[in-house]
Amino acid sequence: MANTIERPLDLLNMSKGKEVLVQVKSDRQFVGTLKAFDIHINVVLDNAKELENGEVKKSIGLTFLRGDTIIFISPASTSK
Amino acid sequence: MANTIERPLDLLNMSKGKEVLVQVKSDRQFVGTLKAFDIHINVVLDNAKELENGEVKKSIGLTFLRGDTIIFISPASTSK
Amino acid sequence: MANTIERPLDLLNMSKGKEVLVQVKSDRQFVGTLKAFDIHINVVLDNAKELENGEVKKSIGLTFLRGDTIIFISPASTSK
Amino acid sequence: MANTIERPLDLLNMSKGKEVLVQVKSDRQFVGTLKAFDIHINVVLDNAKELENGEVKKSIGLTFLRGDTIIFISPASTSK
Amino acid sequence: MANTIERPLDLLNMSKGKEVLVQVKSDRQFVGTLKAFDIHINVVLDNAKELENGEVKKSIGLTFLRGDTIIFISPASTSK
Amino acid sequence: MANTIERPLDLLNMSKGKEVLVQVKSDRQFVGTLKAFDIHINVVLDNAKELENGEVKKSIGLTFLRGDTIIFISPASTSK
Amino acid sequence: MANTIERPLDLLNMSKGKEVLVQVKSDRQFVGTLKAFDIHINVVLDNAKELENGEVKKSIGLTFLRGDTIIFISPASTSK
Repeated sequence: MANTIERPLDLLNMSKGKEVLVQVKSDRQFVGTLKAFDIHINVVLDNAKELENGEVKKSIGLTFLRGDTIIFISPASTSK
Repeated sequence: MANTIERPLDLLNMSKGKEVLVQVKSDRQFVGTLKAFDIHINVVLDNAKELENGEVKKSIGLTFLRGDTIIFISPASTSK
Repeated sequence: MANTIERPLDLLNMSKGKEVLVQVKSDRQFVGTLKAFDIHINVVLDNAKELENGEVKKSIGLTFLRGDTIIFISPASTSK
Repeated sequence: MANTIERPLDLLNMSKGKEVLVQVKSDRQFVGTLKAFDIHINVVLDNAKELENGEVKKSIGLTFLRGDTIIFISPASTSK
Repeated sequence: MANTIERPLDLLNMSKGKEVLVQVKSDRQFVGTLKAFDIHINVVLDNAKELENGEVKKSIGLTFLRGDTIIFISPASTSK
Repeated sequence: MANTIERPLDLLNMSKGKEVLVQVKSDRQFVGTLKAFDIHINVVLDNAKELENGEVKKSIGLTFLRGDTIIFISPASTSK
Repeated sequence: MANTIERPLDLLNMSKGKEVLVQVKSDRQFVGTLKAFDIHINVVLDNAKELENGEVKKSIGLTFLRGDTIIFISPASTSK
């Protein structure tokens, strides 16, 4: 999967429809299915869940996340 | 609902007239009916209430929220 | 009032000449009559008062507030 | 004075040559005569004094204040 | 390696396919293979690992890091 | 001196070659001779000294200060 | 050296190939040979070392530093 990535947004494009982990500022984490993103790295997650210390804290369903607050986005299938 | 979202702003467009949960920086949360938004993610909520630890803290009615302070916006009907 | 709002700035336009509550970063709040605003959400309040825990702390008269520090603006007449 | 303000910068224009109170981030306050401002809300104060808890802490004379750090600017004559 | 660097992005270009150390704000560090970057310094790391005090805290696989949160990026082979 | 200032940058222009006090975020202060500035308020100081509580903490010679971190710049000769 | 500086970036240009001290936000300092910079004040240092309280904490070799985090850059030869 990594070999076809030429620009950073390629990874987000390849992750559409897949589960991703999103780390935002102030120690919040979200997991959910990546539905959409734009060049500001605004993203929409489906079946989003907020995590605290790796545990599900709250289900928040469909969610729009502002790009400005995001630290990293990682497709869940690639973590070990 | 999630299947018709191609760009992040589509979710906000579909959420107009519906109740949304808005998380802003410094741990403030608002619920209210989404009346309007723009590309800066400035939003107007009707019947907005400020929450603290999930409890209603204050009713603030019609409210303009600056996009720059927003972390996420989630239509209330999609949370579980 | 809410039904004629199509864009977020419409609410600010409708609130001109009326009392608004302005929440800024670092827990400051102001109430005053909205005299003017621009697209950066810079605003001018007349008869502005700074609040602390809902109590008037100081009268600061005519005041220019930089948009960048604003979290929300709410017309006072719509809160309950 | 308030009735001739159509845009936020009008208040700054009308305050030239007058004493203003400038609140910046991290709880610093300045008073001084407003000499100049630009669209970034950079301002120059003459006879500027830094305040701490409403008391003069230091005289800093002619001073350039970067707009980015400013929360509000209020002509001193309008506070009560 | 350093002698062929004329612009800062040259170093990132030369580091593609190599292991880099990425320091982000709020004391997080990542190591991983640099797959891609853009002018916003958004980067994609492969086999990314989050570090805490120099120890591997978590493997997060392929990861998109937003440029806005990055302090420095250093090719691992050049540290001593 | 103050009477010829029409725009904020006029003060910086008039202060070239003179000693200025520069306050930056996170409570750092610098004094030095203003050699150059640009519209981003990046400045170069010669014979710069970092101050702590008004005392010289360190001499850092010629120094480039990024505008983004600056709160105020004041020509030393105008403080009383 | 200072007399030929007309714009702030002139100092960075004259410091290429020389040792500089770079202060970034959140109290980190780096020393290293300035290899490159751009208008965003992104810089590349060679033989970079991270300092803590003036002591070398870690050698990080060739390093790309994002301009947005930088407070000041000072050529080491000019400090006293």
